[in-house]
Amino acid sequence: MNIKESIKTLVIKKPLKLDCGKTINNFPLAYETYGSLNKNKDNAILVFHALTGDQFVTGINPVTKKDGWWSYAVGPNKSIDTNKYFVICANVIGGCMGSFGPSHKNPDTNKIYGTDFPVITINDMVNAQVNLLDHFEIKKLFSVVGGSMGGMQVLQFISNYPDKAGTVVPIACTSSHSAQNIAFNELGRQAIASDHNWSDGKYLSNNTLPDKGLSVARMAAHITYLSKKGLQEKFGRKLQERDALKFGFDADFQIESYLRYQGSVFVDRFDANSYLYITRAMDYFDLVKQFDGNLSNAFKKTKAKFFVISFTSDWLYPTQENKDIVIALNAIGADVGFVEIKSDKGHDSFLLDVPDFLNTLKNFLDKSYSER
Amino acid sequence: MNIKESIKTLVIKKPLKLDCGKTINNFPLAYETYGSLNKNKDNAILVFHALTGDQFVTGINPVTKKDGWWSYAVGPNKSIDTNKYFVICANVIGGCMGSFGPSHKNPDTNKIYGTDFPVITINDMVNAQVNLLDHFEIKKLFSVVGGSMGGMQVLQFISNYPDKAGTVVPIACTSSHSAQNIAFNELGRQAIASDHNWSDGKYLSNNTLPDKGLSVARMAAHITYLSKKGLQEKFGRKLQERDALKFGFDADFQIESYLRYQGSVFVDRFDANSYLYITRAMDYFDLVKQFDGNLSNAFKKTKAKFFVISFTSDWLYPTQENKDIVIALNAIGADVGFVEIKSDKGHDSFLLDVPDFLNTLKNFLDKSYSER
Repeated sequence: MNIKESIKTLVIKKPLKLDCGKTINNFPLAYETYGSLNKNKDNAILVFHALTGDQFVTGINPVTKKDGWWSYAVGPNKSIDTNKYFVICANVIGGCMGSFGPSHKNPDTNKIYGTDFPVITINDMVNAQVNLLDHFEIKKLFSVVGGSMGGMQVLQFISNYPDKAGTVVPIACTSSHSAQNIAFNELGRQAIASDHNWSDGKYLSNNTLPDKGLSVARMAAHITYLSKKGLQEKFGRKLQERDALKFGFDADFQIESYLRYQGSVFVDRFDANSYLYITRAMDYFDLVKQFDGNLSNAFKKTKAKFFVISFTSDWLYPTQENKDIVIALNAIGADVGFVEIKSDKGHDSFLLDVPDFLNTLKNFLDKSYSER
Repeated sequence: MNIKESIKTLVIKKPLKLDCGKTINNFPLAYETYGSLNKNKDNAILVFHALTGDQFVTGINPVTKKDGWWSYAVGPNKSIDTNKYFVICANVIGGCMGSFGPSHKNPDTNKIYGTDFPVITINDMVNAQVNLLDHFEIKKLFSVVGGSMGGMQVLQFISNYPDKAGTVVPIACTSSHSAQNIAFNELGRQAIASDHNWSDGKYLSNNTLPDKGLSVARMAAHITYLSKKGLQEKFGRKLQERDALKFGFDADFQIESYLRYQGSVFVDRFDANSYLYITRAMDYFDLVKQFDGNLSNAFKKTKAKFFVISFTSDWLYPTQENKDIVIALNAIGADVGFVEIKSDKGHDSFLLDVPDFLNTLKNFLDKSYSER
């Protein structure tokens, strides 16, 4: 993991009490911005990233040298139009792109944290990121937007800071992580922990990397991001650069080769311990329980305008779980729109070139902005 | 892996040419029988097991000391009534319960095969098992029955031996392994191969076991055997013997504990290389391609009566893939019944106490038997 000099970092001096009980301070929060903050400072959008995302939303990611994770949605004239909006995105705490995480050194011991890093939550993540508003002297964001774990942060943010955003766009997410999703995350964690090189999380000190385990974790997750139908249409039983089955264990099928590739490129850009911490934060997320079983109470203090988006073929965060958010909002007469986008691309639809989604997101934001 | 003396084995002397091109002979096929073969030898049912099953269909498995894998369905007065039928089940070749597999010694080298074992197919499995008919001097089975990979063997068997079964019951299966299912199998294989102790398949010679990798493979598979709804209803976000989250990486949630347990007990009864070989056989299964894209041709030589069963919440072998078999049979005017059983228990429904399924299977078999 090369943390390049191109990473901007804000040091958060204010103590942050984490849900686990520990307090952190003077910790780094890595962030990126796109577009310009206007004079009234009312055109800012805080974008929250998903499990394996980072602050490099669009353009070329200076670390991976690839397109930012939301290049389809964010940029000049795009859904989140950087000619119009000032986009801020921070690497979550627990992450591995510059924000305070398990690959950092513990100042008390001068050793790399590893699994001595405190377990963090979605709540901790947004409480760290709200400091960016003070930094930019923004009183109220125009919008908070995010998909998947980003959507969970959106929900937590508006619940914690009901006056700090005018519009709220949770995409392909949930208000409470399901048993199946916990199961898949646990599978990923066990894959990492099973890697001989993980060494109880001390691999960086040992100069090793649990790349095989992390690769398996990524493969598992990647399957869940795509739909059965999408996989069948894209790969089916197509063979990988061969005319016939080879009767061995090399990648005969394109889908095998594709998954191996996804695993192998992931380990070059992601830290295994961060994967443990961030999946744990997702599993712990239960906004319903935070509000004693009544999700509506999470939103009753805000006057923000909500827009919830789901995808037909997303089986990880299916439409019903997104609708549960809408139902909770309707129950208190909140201003809420909802759309289920037809797509065969599964959970990954929000990251991909899905014109109906991209247009819908753009229309909601631009209309809300002109009406504000 | 203790292969106990209680395992019955038939040595197949007749050479078997495998799909990979190699020929095997004098190889062991481990099998079990239940009930009695009648005088006319027309009451035999050949049951095919799924990926991790074995010949011990019902009663206490003498190796694991647990109930046989199909104890709900097979036994006196049960769906497959051993008071009436003579049930035969063999461990598939490539398996690890006594049949010829990768944990056996290669007689040419006197070394354990490991990954030098030939890659086998579903076709090879049924071609090995058809020898059981000669052994018992059975000209025609009353039925061939199996779920999941067992269902694939059912389809392959009747395609290869159209006159050797009167009724055919494929359950929760497919005629062609899907990209998503190949993906999940590849994930399991990569989890095993990532285990430091796997040692390129030579672990038995090295006196090690890739139990962590095999456990992760089992966890991955186990998630696919259950439905999202079933997991939510059974586990939801219930905590494991604690009142609150512990902010660590132990199993906080019951679903985590359950998966870890499933992984840990599996490694005591299953061989990692067998897992590689059998999943490979499943991935290679494509009866549609075997018949040049026309599945109907697989069945046009048989006069057998088919009964196809699927489950509403099975997302691994969904109803549509089972219906594709029915459609192919209807296209040639075959005698075929079909039922989709309502169940929240996912793919595992065929192994569990699902009364609608168990009754349906019993009724079909008993009615067909009395009408024969």
